[in-house]
Amino acid sequence: MKTVKGGVCAPKGFLAAGIDCGIRKNGKKDLALIVSQKEAAAAGVFTKNLVKGAPIIVSQKHLKSGYARAIIANSGNANTCNDNGLEIAEGMCELVERLTDIPSNNVLVASTGVIGQKLSLAPIENGMPDLIDSLGQNSDDAATAIMTTDTYKKEAAVEMILDGKTVRIGAIAKGSGMIHPDMATMLVFVTTDAVISPALLQKALLFAIEDSFHMISIDRDTSTNDTVFVLANGLAENKPIIEEDADFELFKTALLDLFLLLSRSIAKDGEGASKLLECQVTGAKIKSDAAKIAKSVICSPLFKCAMFGADANWGRVLCAIGYAGAQVDIGKIEVSFQSSAGEIDVCKNGEGLEFSEELAKSILSQDEIIIKIALNDGTESATAFGCDLSYDYVKINGDYRS
Amino acid sequence: MKTVKGGVCAPKGFLAAGIDCGIRKNGKKDLALIVSQKEAAAAGVFTKNLVKGAPIIVSQKHLKSGYARAIIANSGNANTCNDNGLEIAEGMCELVERLTDIPSNNVLVASTGVIGQKLSLAPIENGMPDLIDSLGQNSDDAATAIMTTDTYKKEAAVEMILDGKTVRIGAIAKGSGMIHPDMATMLVFVTTDAVISPALLQKALLFAIEDSFHMISIDRDTSTNDTVFVLANGLAENKPIIEEDADFELFKTALLDLFLLLSRSIAKDGEGASKLLECQVTGAKIKSDAAKIAKSVICSPLFKCAMFGADANWGRVLCAIGYAGAQVDIGKIEVSFQSSAGEIDVCKNGEGLEFSEELAKSILSQDEIIIKIALNDGTESATAFGCDLSYDYVKINGDYRS
Repeated sequence: MKTVKGGVCAPKGFLAAGIDCGIRKNGKKDLALIVSQKEAAAAGVFTKNLVKGAPIIVSQKHLKSGYARAIIANSGNANTCNDNGLEIAEGMCELVERLTDIPSNNVLVASTGVIGQKLSLAPIENGMPDLIDSLGQNSDDAATAIMTTDTYKKEAAVEMILDGKTVRIGAIAKGSGMIHPDMATMLVFVTTDAVISPALLQKALLFAIEDSFHMISIDRDTSTNDTVFVLANGLAENKPIIEEDADFELFKTALLDLFLLLSRSIAKDGEGASKLLECQVTGAKIKSDAAKIAKSVICSPLFKCAMFGADANWGRVLCAIGYAGAQVDIGKIEVSFQSSAGEIDVCKNGEGLEFSEELAKSILSQDEIIIKIALNDGTESATAFGCDLSYDYVKINGDYRS
Repeated sequence: MKTVKGGVCAPKGFLAAGIDCGIRKNGKKDLALIVSQKEAAAAGVFTKNLVKGAPIIVSQKHLKSGYARAIIANSGNANTCNDNGLEIAEGMCELVERLTDIPSNNVLVASTGVIGQKLSLAPIENGMPDLIDSLGQNSDDAATAIMTTDTYKKEAAVEMILDGKTVRIGAIAKGSGMIHPDMATMLVFVTTDAVISPALLQKALLFAIEDSFHMISIDRDTSTNDTVFVLANGLAENKPIIEEDADFELFKTALLDLFLLLSRSIAKDGEGASKLLECQVTGAKIKSDAAKIAKSVICSPLFKCAMFGADANWGRVLCAIGYAGAQVDIGKIEVSFQSSAGEIDVCKNGEGLEFSEELAKSILSQDEIIIKIALNDGTESATAFGCDLSYDYVKINGDYRS
């Protein structure tokens, strides 16, 4: 397995485009399109929030066949909680049909941005010819067009050999705010040239999100529009993956690796974030307890503030472990902080250790911090990804809608 | 029922004191004592965090008899996650015994402040004579001495007539950060001169916290030291409350009223808060759903930031309703915002309404905001209390320990 360039255009037979059609007022790109040359097996996971964006309803309908050929998405408006959302989401798919040979029910759709405002089809309709004309090896444009408060675009691609054939998986994603995945997360669009059945594609997707997107939290707010789509167009011509064999294992592991790259990228670019927090919990009796603890720590506002201030306030780590809802023996817990500047042990047997405040400050002043928690009570582990809580989170979200 | 002055000294037979003994470095008061003239029925509730402060372990032991005469508490150090916590907590109770006629196992103890640092008995021992000398009608001193990042002291008292006798309940509290009660909350010390059995006192306490302290959240961090103590010394000489009769109903309702006063006071003074948020949910099928939704909204960091910015971003209210884990029909939901500047409807049938942004801004610029959510699906209701998320929360918590 190795990483390659090209994002969603790294696999064979995928084109992408991203343009500014005028939904966002600030001249930023706001409309993205990904097209497969041939019909692709398709899978998706969506938010569990009861308030669901209209694009989710439409995409779920279009996914029923197990196949799709295109993904259209806009930023600047979530097309959620308004009275014409379904009409607009369907309309976006129909606009793709009108200018291509792709039937509208073969198009998946997603929207991200402010909730509760009407989205007009007019700018999208006006922009469509330009969008279609721009289709090419333009994964980066598509990645840019789905950004909201993201400060950089997220794209990645990996390559593996299956059955002697080179198979690639590429993806773009957007994260930033309202990130606390429940079932799926933010927007992630994945392409692959693997030959795989829709059922196994869905299965691989569910496997891969569990340890990646499900383990991110920026702010504990589960979005109304979380969506992950995967399109597999089969152009790699590997032996078809139609059962859970070694090739399937390789494929789903590659998908997980790709998702972990994106998860770290999304967490590090959380709204207002100045650093990535990675909480590694080991030695749990059961995995779900390790996961609960890892997420509890990276979700704690008090701990996130301490990390922003590079303050080795490990008491807040223990506090978050204590209310995680997991079974743990507090008296066995060890905690240490690690970064490119070194590693420091701060707690053993559930009690504080003497440590150099100077070294701790230096370790916590880096932009990627690992919080290691050893429970010493079993063999299960889990890792969660988050970010610090800064003034900028408040600034961005105190004045987002206006 | 009416409110009266005097805090924990409003009921007959209680004295209080608060001094600066030097635990906190900034010259603020840090040691509080409340003493009852005679032995009192005692009740308590404590944090459900698995990491429990040493004072909680000691107080639980001392509460087993159902009776107590004094509460000693310090701020500046939580006496939690260190290797001599139990010894210090016991030591604080023994210091009370040494200078009074109160046996140490009749003393309840609480600590609040930084987790994971050793607390020395020396400053407390040195301060004890002064603390004892200061005992008097000094509820305000005791309330001040338990403050951490609180910006004002919390005390309240109410009066009722039971069986022709005037009965009073008084309390002091501290809140501010790490507030997301689970079973109990922060520190609350309650005194009453009612004659009531320990069992019914505990029952009244559990009733009263349910709709008050359990419905506050500042930052979703459940503290390791949450404690509510109640002492009932019987000096009001009412007919003893030993069964669940009309007097018991009156007493527990008065206790709830008192707790609601304190809850609003604690929420409004959340760390960095610039305004109180009160989320009133009505029309739920079952009460627990109403409570889940009310708490989900006041816990949402995105919504809290919007309130800080006086931005009527009701989409974030709907988003938080959607992930609350409650059964709701999104299509029936109505949302409005209310304050001293008026009331404005922003959402009906789960969709946005046209509204005056100017009026909304004016309403949300006040310091007490009510978020009204009508689910139109039943008759149950619940109210939760919280605060906005401001730059100052980050500032306070990015640099607390140092």
